[in-house]
Amino acid sequence: MATGNKPFPQMHRVAGFKLGTTSAGIKTPGRSDLVVMELQPGSAVAGVFTQNAFCAAPVVVAKQHLSSAAPRYLVTNTGNANAGTGEQGMIDAQASCIALAELQGVSTDQVLPFSTGVIGEPLPIEKLLAALPAAVAALDENTWASAAEGILTTDTRPKGASLQYQPDSATDKLITITGITKGSGMIKPNMATMLGYVATDAQVDSELLQRALRLVANKSFNRITVDSDTSTNDAVILVATGASGIHIDESNFEHFVAQLEIVFIELAQSIIRDGEGASKFVSVVVDGALDSAEALKVAYTVAESPLVKTALAASDANWGRILAAVGRAGVEDLDVSRVSVRLNEVLIVEAGGRAASYTEAAGEAAMAPEDITIHISLNRGAPEKTVTETIWTTDLTYEYVRINAEYRT
Amino acid sequence: MATGNKPFPQMHRVAGFKLGTTSAGIKTPGRSDLVVMELQPGSAVAGVFTQNAFCAAPVVVAKQHLSSAAPRYLVTNTGNANAGTGEQGMIDAQASCIALAELQGVSTDQVLPFSTGVIGEPLPIEKLLAALPAAVAALDENTWASAAEGILTTDTRPKGASLQYQPDSATDKLITITGITKGSGMIKPNMATMLGYVATDAQVDSELLQRALRLVANKSFNRITVDSDTSTNDAVILVATGASGIHIDESNFEHFVAQLEIVFIELAQSIIRDGEGASKFVSVVVDGALDSAEALKVAYTVAESPLVKTALAASDANWGRILAAVGRAGVEDLDVSRVSVRLNEVLIVEAGGRAASYTEAAGEAAMAPEDITIHISLNRGAPEKTVTETIWTTDLTYEYVRINAEYRT
Repeated sequence: MATGNKPFPQMHRVAGFKLGTTSAGIKTPGRSDLVVMELQPGSAVAGVFTQNAFCAAPVVVAKQHLSSAAPRYLVTNTGNANAGTGEQGMIDAQASCIALAELQGVSTDQVLPFSTGVIGEPLPIEKLLAALPAAVAALDENTWASAAEGILTTDTRPKGASLQYQPDSATDKLITITGITKGSGMIKPNMATMLGYVATDAQVDSELLQRALRLVANKSFNRITVDSDTSTNDAVILVATGASGIHIDESNFEHFVAQLEIVFIELAQSIIRDGEGASKFVSVVVDGALDSAEALKVAYTVAESPLVKTALAASDANWGRILAAVGRAGVEDLDVSRVSVRLNEVLIVEAGGRAASYTEAAGEAAMAPEDITIHISLNRGAPEKTVTETIWTTDLTYEYVRINAEYRT
Repeated sequence: MATGNKPFPQMHRVAGFKLGTTSAGIKTPGRSDLVVMELQPGSAVAGVFTQNAFCAAPVVVAKQHLSSAAPRYLVTNTGNANAGTGEQGMIDAQASCIALAELQGVSTDQVLPFSTGVIGEPLPIEKLLAALPAAVAALDENTWASAAEGILTTDTRPKGASLQYQPDSATDKLITITGITKGSGMIKPNMATMLGYVATDAQVDSELLQRALRLVANKSFNRITVDSDTSTNDAVILVATGASGIHIDESNFEHFVAQLEIVFIELAQSIIRDGEGASKFVSVVVDGALDSAEALKVAYTVAESPLVKTALAASDANWGRILAAVGRAGVEDLDVSRVSVRLNEVLIVEAGGRAASYTEAAGEAAMAPEDITIHISLNRGAPEKTVTETIWTTDLTYEYVRINAEYRT
């Protein structure tokens, strides 16, 4: 199951950024599972990684390499997460970097490794190494779509987003931002989701690029949850090749970040739309909070409540379960009698109880669409001083249980 | 579904404590849904209640009455939680106390009201009031079993525990402790679970009784989770009638608490064994923690992980998901390479990776039984300085989703 079945978008190429995809036989034989990405010399790279203490070998190696050299290659395998694999896992992650570096004549620490798939099985490194030349041979700027396929695991469809914008009305020049992502379960990123790769041809120095990445990750990949389980392998990489010749500095940074945010939100939402077993795409909006932390606490408690999620699966406007989740979210001195809740445009709770205007028929109608917004107003202070946060999640269906009872993460 | 289908135990009567059960027609017609309990004059009463900010009207009233007078009656209805019902809910909760007080010639604040069932529907107070005389007429010391039936909602079976012990080897006198509880979903108590009533004929002053209740609730009802959803109506009441004539003071307090704990743990575990859709009874033991808070953080993160719970449902020894949950539990400076995990007696993880001695066959064998212990050793310090905590939970099955998609909490 999945929601909002839009066609895969048109992907603008990013000058200076190539992708090559092949099948190494790690996952199902014949299925693409190895993707190499090449960055032109001088590209800036920013990354955010899982904050799970139990993080995978490739995450450790990618972080080390990113801090010691300017990356030229990213190598990603699916079918095996190389997580919980101890010392051998570190050796295998390094081996993939060494092999690709030798093949392309760069230094080992200019290669960043990424893995996703089953946890705790040894990485079939021989298969991966044997397939590297084929992936390299496929490198091209126009292969975003096949790379989007190549990084998938339990996802039911590839996920991409792409746009071009004109940073300066005085010239015709365009900046391109294009990205792909994967992820479907074990989704509650904490700095980054499963895997995401976004490239732009803007010219951005590394420090500013990292700042931009943190800003937009916090409005996109860090605002989604399928099942509250943070992966061991989360990583999002943002590359600026500079090939457009358009320089980003403080003067046009905000515009750049706003455009980047569009691509990031589209990618993050595409993960939720393809969430394991998802039959609903749910936005949880919390306003009237004293700060961002308490707004997020309420939003995540509601979004992760199994009782709210099963009610959503049943299209049941069960406002009691929503209020019960709000009540246990741990907001200090919460005055429930000030809380109101809307489902899409229907007011279901006011003053902490069922809204006077509410009817079962209106609640049913509000729950019918595939896209549902649960809008919770805490009314904790003067509106101009309060904070609003939005996160995205799925419902909890039989299908989620089936997938995760059958699939070995 | 449910696990560990033991027969309902023999319930020793508690002198000075009577129970009367009837059908008020609030729930399914003909099904018991109203229970009155009578405490002999001079009984001490202790209570712990939900910490959900969105708490039900009867919880508010019960807490008020408990603080202002010595209770003589408890009145419980199922089929309707009287939660999210605003001002009318408070009036209805009070009305049930007023009516029972008039019937029995006590003051209104000597009656504590309890409700459980659907949230957000008005309490059918007329039906409740009309049935009170029948419940009062049924009051008897030997009716624990029918009361245990009368407080159920989605539970598949009644839950009770009872014991007698000899507090002083110099005499033959016995103290009796008997209790019942209900609850199956929306279970993550925070001070108390759905509903629990325990009575003893020991003579205990109120302050000491409250201390005893807090101690044992923290080892029983506050150590269970079905779905991480804390109810709006949780309450556990402990009554000491004093009818045995045996006085509890500091000298024999510890022995009393130890016996009380046996009854409380049995009751709390019976809720988990009857957890919605449960096919496994899972103990999560975390040792080697620096303090109780971090042990519980790890235990609950593992117990509430949808991916761990679905693996348990599939009898899949998926240690990767367990480690991933440990890793995201938020323990500061966790050194994953010191973590080991056992499933029942099988070592599956050592030094943060798959144990050398582990085989798939051993993992399968460990997961086969209905009762599973996940034993996580954090090895965070010298064993004599570290802390161990144990909690109990269920797996996540299709059946859980079905029940909660169909049932209006």
